[in-house]
Amino acid sequence: MVELMTTPAAPEPAEPTLESLVGRVLGGGAFPEASLAVLPRIAEDLAGIESRLLETLHSTYPQLADAANYACRVGGKRVRPLLMAVAHRALGAEDTQPIHALAAAFQLIHTATLVHDDVIDHAELRRGRPSLPRAFGLPAAIVVGDFLFIRAFELAAEYPRSIILRCGESCADLAEGEVLQEGARFDLGTGREHYFRVVERKTAAIVAAALASVAEISGADPDGIAALEGYGRALGIAFQIRDDLLDVYGDPDLLGKPLYSDLREGNPTLVSLETHAELQAAERAEFERLFALRHKEMADLLRLRELTDRTHAADRVAAEAAAWAERAVASIAEVRPGPYHDVLDQMARGAAGRRY
Amino acid sequence: MVELMTTPAAPEPAEPTLESLVGRVLGGGAFPEASLAVLPRIAEDLAGIESRLLETLHSTYPQLADAANYACRVGGKRVRPLLMAVAHRALGAEDTQPIHALAAAFQLIHTATLVHDDVIDHAELRRGRPSLPRAFGLPAAIVVGDFLFIRAFELAAEYPRSIILRCGESCADLAEGEVLQEGARFDLGTGREHYFRVVERKTAAIVAAALASVAEISGADPDGIAALEGYGRALGIAFQIRDDLLDVYGDPDLLGKPLYSDLREGNPTLVSLETHAELQAAERAEFERLFALRHKEMADLLRLRELTDRTHAADRVAAEAAAWAERAVASIAEVRPGPYHDVLDQMARGAAGRRY
Repeated sequence: MVELMTTPAAPEPAEPTLESLVGRVLGGGAFPEASLAVLPRIAEDLAGIESRLLETLHSTYPQLADAANYACRVGGKRVRPLLMAVAHRALGAEDTQPIHALAAAFQLIHTATLVHDDVIDHAELRRGRPSLPRAFGLPAAIVVGDFLFIRAFELAAEYPRSIILRCGESCADLAEGEVLQEGARFDLGTGREHYFRVVERKTAAIVAAALASVAEISGADPDGIAALEGYGRALGIAFQIRDDLLDVYGDPDLLGKPLYSDLREGNPTLVSLETHAELQAAERAEFERLFALRHKEMADLLRLRELTDRTHAADRVAAEAAAWAERAVASIAEVRPGPYHDVLDQMARGAAGRRY
Repeated sequence: MVELMTTPAAPEPAEPTLESLVGRVLGGGAFPEASLAVLPRIAEDLAGIESRLLETLHSTYPQLADAANYACRVGGKRVRPLLMAVAHRALGAEDTQPIHALAAAFQLIHTATLVHDDVIDHAELRRGRPSLPRAFGLPAAIVVGDFLFIRAFELAAEYPRSIILRCGESCADLAEGEVLQEGARFDLGTGREHYFRVVERKTAAIVAAALASVAEISGADPDGIAALEGYGRALGIAFQIRDDLLDVYGDPDLLGKPLYSDLREGNPTLVSLETHAELQAAERAEFERLFALRHKEMADLLRLRELTDRTHAADRVAAEAAAWAERAVASIAEVRPGPYHDVLDQMARGAAGRRY
């Protein structure tokens, strides 16, 4: 095993470098040396997907292209395309070209939702740069999000109807997740079950659909498709739980955004739910009261953090993220062994352990 | 010819009644008596499309379904599905079932854009009822718009790739139109050419794509497809120009929303551009200054209206809408004659002459 340094996140070049790729795959973790050899090939896959993505944005729409390009550059670490390319190779593909358009589509959908999320959450920053609504205004942000969805579906139109529907259903899940989340804002009483309902729809469903689609395109049988789908779902949940932790305990420079946004926006996370569950009556009431404030001062946020520290919620939540990563690994246990399979395993663990 | 009364617009039942259908086809105009006989069949077509539309909203998403249903009920007069069904029959179809899913898709896309428009324009009312952002909040409005787009593309996935791409391209046009429009806000100097660029993309492209798709599904040759596409484009432009007029000279009760929203939001319309072009120096400067105000008092709006009256811009604009309607009629001159063809002609003229 070699220990590698990760590099800060934002702003990243459009062409994925090997260095940034290592950071994304590792998520700050360790890596079997043998698998490092396959990274250059994955970097090429990603470059192919990226050029497909950028190609769809140019087109005849000069007014939109700038903002759409901006959104794609600040938006996301290309985790979905990366997972899709690695999964395609793990399932035996010598050439990932057949999934490039679909991977670009899933990346565009992800970017579209980030853009619309930034409108909803009034986010100022995205990966260290002004968010799209901040940089281009709210109307542009809404329309660019729509445009990215549209381009994604145009790309998906190259595939069989079953793939388009997988893609569409996961987007609908995502919308439902967003609405469910809105309904639970500022309310810790909604609990763990509701939290997982939101996460499965808002984060996990689309990763699951992306990987199930790759399995389908690879000609996998129903068990094989279910294995990759389960992997994607569990990895997505691990990823989101880690996100919850990073919002309280991450490094804002690495994250490219300030801490405590979930607390500020009143989104119950596994961290705040665990804290709430463990606190004694008086402090629990205080935590609830502060969490429910629509406008929180920094002192309120720091007090919430202090109460969180006290319950050691972070340790339990980290263990839960790790357990989901192992579920992801277990889900693809039957996929034939090899360096790409190892990369998938590492990416699941990286999702649960990443620092940005 | 018989002269028929039109009924007020909002709120309309989901099931299209013959009465409301007559209103929509006529747009306040006259109608060849022979064609009235075919209206019941078109009403059945519309009911089929509507049930297909509502079916896609139910699904497993209870939290979304309410808001999505609300959006579909307040959103729109079903002009696109109506045009598509009539065109399908005009091209010889005995049964419009093959285009029901596509017509529902175009209606959903239209509704999605209305919802996002209402967010962008801070609209309070839509067809006499609270707009979706007003009724359900901004986050829900953004997500419901996305959800409607997604469901539309799922419906479109039933069709050949060429149709999906037609649909997608017209949506991209629409997004581009929205961005172009934003760029011209509060600025009358952008002129007529820019205005038509916006209208072609924002309104006409999607009607053109809807009708071209129907022609393609009907097995029309390239000339036939171009004829219907040209009809849709010209009708869309006529429709939008009429919209501009109604915003200043319409009946707010019939429209279900207050007047002067384009003036308030600073969207240059053909009415304001024509007024601006005709005014003498001092009044033109005043018109420009008032138009450019970000926050207008009612007195400002009424003064803008007064200056508009003075130039008789309304007469010239009405003539221009009528000319576009005749272009639409001319575009389908080669389509075989019959009652459905007559309805198409009437709908183009109705678009240019409607009162809501």
